[in-house]
Amino acid sequence: MLLDSIKSPEDVKKLNYEDLEILSEEIRKEIIHVTSENGGHVGPNLGVVELTIALHRIFDTPKDNIQFDVSHQSYVHKLLTGRNGKAFRTLRQGDGVCGFSNRKESPHDSFGAGHAGTCLSASLGMAVARDLNGGDEHVVAVCGDAAFTCGHTMEALNNIASSTKRLIVILNDNEWSISKNVGALSKSFNELITNPIYNKIHTDVESLLAKIPGGESLIKMGSKAKKEAKDFLVPSCLFEHYDLRFVGPIDGHNLKELEYYLEFAKQSDEPILLHVITQKGKGYDIARKFPEKFHGASPYDVSTGKSKGTKESRPKYQDVFGKYLTKFAQENEKIVAITAAMASGTGLNHFEEKLPKRFFDVGIAEGHAVIFAAGLATKGIKPVCAIYSTFLQRAIDSINHDVCLQNLPIVFCMDRSGLSPNDGPTHHGLFDISYLRSIPNTIIMQAKDEDELVDMLFTALDTNSPTFIRIPRGNATGKTIKDEPIKLEIGKAQEIKKGTDVVIWALGNMVSEALAVAKELEEAQKISVGVVNARFAKPIDKDLLIKHSSEAKLIVTLEDHVQTGGFGSSVAEILQHENHATPVEIVGWPDKFIPHGDSVSSLRALNGLSVEQISEKVLKRLQNKGQNIRSKVLV
Amino acid sequence: MLLDSIKSPEDVKKLNYEDLEILSEEIRKEIIHVTSENGGHVGPNLGVVELTIALHRIFDTPKDNIQFDVSHQSYVHKLLTGRNGKAFRTLRQGDGVCGFSNRKESPHDSFGAGHAGTCLSASLGMAVARDLNGGDEHVVAVCGDAAFTCGHTMEALNNIASSTKRLIVILNDNEWSISKNVGALSKSFNELITNPIYNKIHTDVESLLAKIPGGESLIKMGSKAKKEAKDFLVPSCLFEHYDLRFVGPIDGHNLKELEYYLEFAKQSDEPILLHVITQKGKGYDIARKFPEKFHGASPYDVSTGKSKGTKESRPKYQDVFGKYLTKFAQENEKIVAITAAMASGTGLNHFEEKLPKRFFDVGIAEGHAVIFAAGLATKGIKPVCAIYSTFLQRAIDSINHDVCLQNLPIVFCMDRSGLSPNDGPTHHGLFDISYLRSIPNTIIMQAKDEDELVDMLFTALDTNSPTFIRIPRGNATGKTIKDEPIKLEIGKAQEIKKGTDVVIWALGNMVSEALAVAKELEEAQKISVGVVNARFAKPIDKDLLIKHSSEAKLIVTLEDHVQTGGFGSSVAEILQHENHATPVEIVGWPDKFIPHGDSVSSLRALNGLSVEQISEKVLKRLQNKGQNIRSKVLV
Repeated sequence: MLLDSIKSPEDVKKLNYEDLEILSEEIRKEIIHVTSENGGHVGPNLGVVELTIALHRIFDTPKDNIQFDVSHQSYVHKLLTGRNGKAFRTLRQGDGVCGFSNRKESPHDSFGAGHAGTCLSASLGMAVARDLNGGDEHVVAVCGDAAFTCGHTMEALNNIASSTKRLIVILNDNEWSISKNVGALSKSFNELITNPIYNKIHTDVESLLAKIPGGESLIKMGSKAKKEAKDFLVPSCLFEHYDLRFVGPIDGHNLKELEYYLEFAKQSDEPILLHVITQKGKGYDIARKFPEKFHGASPYDVSTGKSKGTKESRPKYQDVFGKYLTKFAQENEKIVAITAAMASGTGLNHFEEKLPKRFFDVGIAEGHAVIFAAGLATKGIKPVCAIYSTFLQRAIDSINHDVCLQNLPIVFCMDRSGLSPNDGPTHHGLFDISYLRSIPNTIIMQAKDEDELVDMLFTALDTNSPTFIRIPRGNATGKTIKDEPIKLEIGKAQEIKKGTDVVIWALGNMVSEALAVAKELEEAQKISVGVVNARFAKPIDKDLLIKHSSEAKLIVTLEDHVQTGGFGSSVAEILQHENHATPVEIVGWPDKFIPHGDSVSSLRALNGLSVEQISEKVLKRLQNKGQNIRSKVLV
Repeated sequence: MLLDSIKSPEDVKKLNYEDLEILSEEIRKEIIHVTSENGGHVGPNLGVVELTIALHRIFDTPKDNIQFDVSHQSYVHKLLTGRNGKAFRTLRQGDGVCGFSNRKESPHDSFGAGHAGTCLSASLGMAVARDLNGGDEHVVAVCGDAAFTCGHTMEALNNIASSTKRLIVILNDNEWSISKNVGALSKSFNELITNPIYNKIHTDVESLLAKIPGGESLIKMGSKAKKEAKDFLVPSCLFEHYDLRFVGPIDGHNLKELEYYLEFAKQSDEPILLHVITQKGKGYDIARKFPEKFHGASPYDVSTGKSKGTKESRPKYQDVFGKYLTKFAQENEKIVAITAAMASGTGLNHFEEKLPKRFFDVGIAEGHAVIFAAGLATKGIKPVCAIYSTFLQRAIDSINHDVCLQNLPIVFCMDRSGLSPNDGPTHHGLFDISYLRSIPNTIIMQAKDEDELVDMLFTALDTNSPTFIRIPRGNATGKTIKDEPIKLEIGKAQEIKKGTDVVIWALGNMVSEALAVAKELEEAQKISVGVVNARFAKPIDKDLLIKHSSEAKLIVTLEDHVQTGGFGSSVAEILQHENHATPVEIVGWPDKFIPHGDSVSSLRALNGLSVEQISEKVLKRLQNKGQNIRSKVLV
């Protein structure tokens, strides 16, 4: 294979166009092959094969810096920068190549990403640093069209022209964000492409003028008038308001055309934006036909496109949430659903299908989504925001300032709370309790199974305060969902199993782990272990906690969340406020970023969170014989 | 006074234009009088007198909803909606009228604010709620030009046209944000105003056409060609890309013109934006001359504009920070300073003055500011981001995803950590430790005085990890700053005073309070109290903490931060991880939003944080006689 011979971008530069065509085909085959085995972002990468090849032929990484927004479309870049062959076959697997750009992985990955809309800001920072350092390297930002629905991108755009004279922005326009692109701007982009008098750099102004009424008289008037006329005639594009030089549309699958314009951009003495049109899934018909599924796919059969995997009888948490929210909304017309480009990821596709008029996908705009919900809530609408836990970090100020300060009853369903194992640290949802529980008025809960999730959703829709439900990625437990949901009492935990030595307070999906730990300790160590389904990370069931603290030798907290500032931390705080000295063993993810890995269980085992490891921790604490404990009965 | 007779907007509607002129003058006098006594946002409110009067004559609040972005310019609205007279004289004082919109204060305040850029999103939510509810009320969003530097506004803009047919946006263009407006968009706005063929709704297309070469032939071609021609001829404005109907510029001090266009907007069957030009500080020459000072002013002498107040020998923390950062940057050319429209608020004006090329004010764009810093840091630049603690909430995702995950050495100076007493809950900085300490790689510190602040800044500039310095608003302690700063050891606390019964671990400005508490308890109660200057909220000096925990009966933590998930919570966590059962009394702000008030000390006293109250808490905990404590020496 030609691809095997590519050790670095230098090798790409040596190839002729015939070979480059072969290389493109091989890259597409390799991406399809590897993603069909490992899962991953198929469509976006098939769309940027020629663009990435052209970038690496015109620019010299790592001296020049090419950043990819989100960087889910950086597979081609990885294949061309020394990570082809065996390395690429480990894509998204434990210790394997990351599915996103990663500065630790390669000097060619100049900036890590995983969330959308960061590329322009980071690239502008790099360009300004280059200017300050007196360097001459090129800085190139590759952004999808969806990035322009994101506020960060627009903030950066406003700062480019005043900050540097040299920055190359590639607008990789495939008319799709994660969900179908939304909002006025996507229409504006589309008009640019379809408009016959579009600003092509090689287009003669005169031939343009000839096409419009009255144009002939302008042609006769000489160059100054022509310049003025051109300013009038060429439909202005958004980027001109930001003082960017604008060129396009460029065929993103025509290597020679791409190289021509990239070379032109390289010479530009002002910030320049190239509008490149690409096709998501190019070269793989099934991916083109189902762009949403093949944006980020689980392993699939290449010939049919069908998902691989064993038959799974357990539903996904996402589907349970989406279907039951739809059911509740069908019974209550005040309920609306909001997401930020995560309709199918969160399960809201069910809602969209049944109740399209009450479904709002606002684009990659989490801050707006939350404030928009706040506006709705002031007028008696009941908004449900479904946003991944990690992306909700974008909206913490809005949650604090717009929602909680005004105590508006909005339901937040935080998808991918816990791990998103193959994606890694940019997608794990391990911080939400910490960033939410210090905000007054918040209610935070997590269900132990899908039946309880439905109860929680039902309950949350009936609270008078901002209510946050943590929902893990993937399959639920298989528990039958009862016909009629019950309303849970806010702040009441559920005692699942009594125990006299140790009581494990577990949150959500960790309840099953707690039961396994209890079993292990009881059987192997004859220790009596109680298990509590905490249900609420805020408010915590203080009465039950105090009872257990008074009775047991040790309280253990167990959460699918960092142990710093989370649920266990809150339990320890409460016991201090209540002047209880019972030891609390806080078990959660350690204070470090958790990389991507093969599975939830493998990552747990690597971080001390397997059932055996937790059991050992508990045992060790119990057996500590109080060596560090000084009894402090105060006088 | 005419103003005294205004009990509600109905009374404003009854007045003739002559009386309205008198009313405008009275309102300006009242605003100047009250802000000169209480401090407040002078310039912005003087600029919107006619606009607000016109809004209340054309619309009917509270049925119709008028929202103000940031809402620091809502004083006129307050004066016209039942909060004139005595009420307004209490502006920004304890139990008095709030300096911002507040839903609890009046039904005319339809949405609370304090942070910029939320108004469009919230208003769109309200408009959509109106549509869903089948209502017919009007929804009006009043946004300053600076709001358009903020990503949330741009995200909302992208969603308006696809979400509602009825929303009125007022762009209140006074060419100033908090600092002078920055970026490409402000230039674009300015071009709109100065362009001779600007899109005035009352301008005849034909008369426009006559002015440009070739236009005559277009005129002859009838209405379709005219429409097309108009699309070509009228310089496109940003808002057209967002499918908003656009009208302007409108003289924001001409009441009749304002009413004409507001009436027109009321009838519009598509979302419409009115571009209104106002003058900040209109009617008060001193405020016009010093717009930045009179954006938000402390009490001042009306005739001279000079700040009131007793002679203060203690410098402001902001000035110490700004001056010493400038000094360090003069010695190290890699240091740059970044802020988000808070140059003088944070003290960076000193830096801007001396090192303008290394100073970056990015507009109201905290997310971009932080990612931009991350980009700079990848190439060896040392960025210092000075952003208010409460506004940094906007950038938590960027701090996590772009800075900490990549462990980039950026210094964050979080101004207004602690209280901003007269502003209230939208400006208090009480959550930063909670939202930062769960993020891996963070270093968080706070100085006990200005000398230590300089040491901390010096130290932070030399760390290899993201480092956050909490800086309170207002005057420092008066401590002499030594000639050469010293580098502090990361994670090492300072033992200020030994004690055997109780050790108070205090953070930053609470060290002086801790010393006062210690004095009180020792003198009145004969209790031996130690005091530690914790310096670091993360990492905490574990060795010293363990030592104190082994020796003392009680550890007290004291922080100018919510007690939920903050510094004290971290201390309690560490002791649990170390299997120490020493009681910890966590003292901080309670888990509720703290309203505005007269002063730091009055708000502390209202929330159990005076020296006496803290002393009582400590005493009570000490005297608890262990009634809830069961000694748990594990076996």
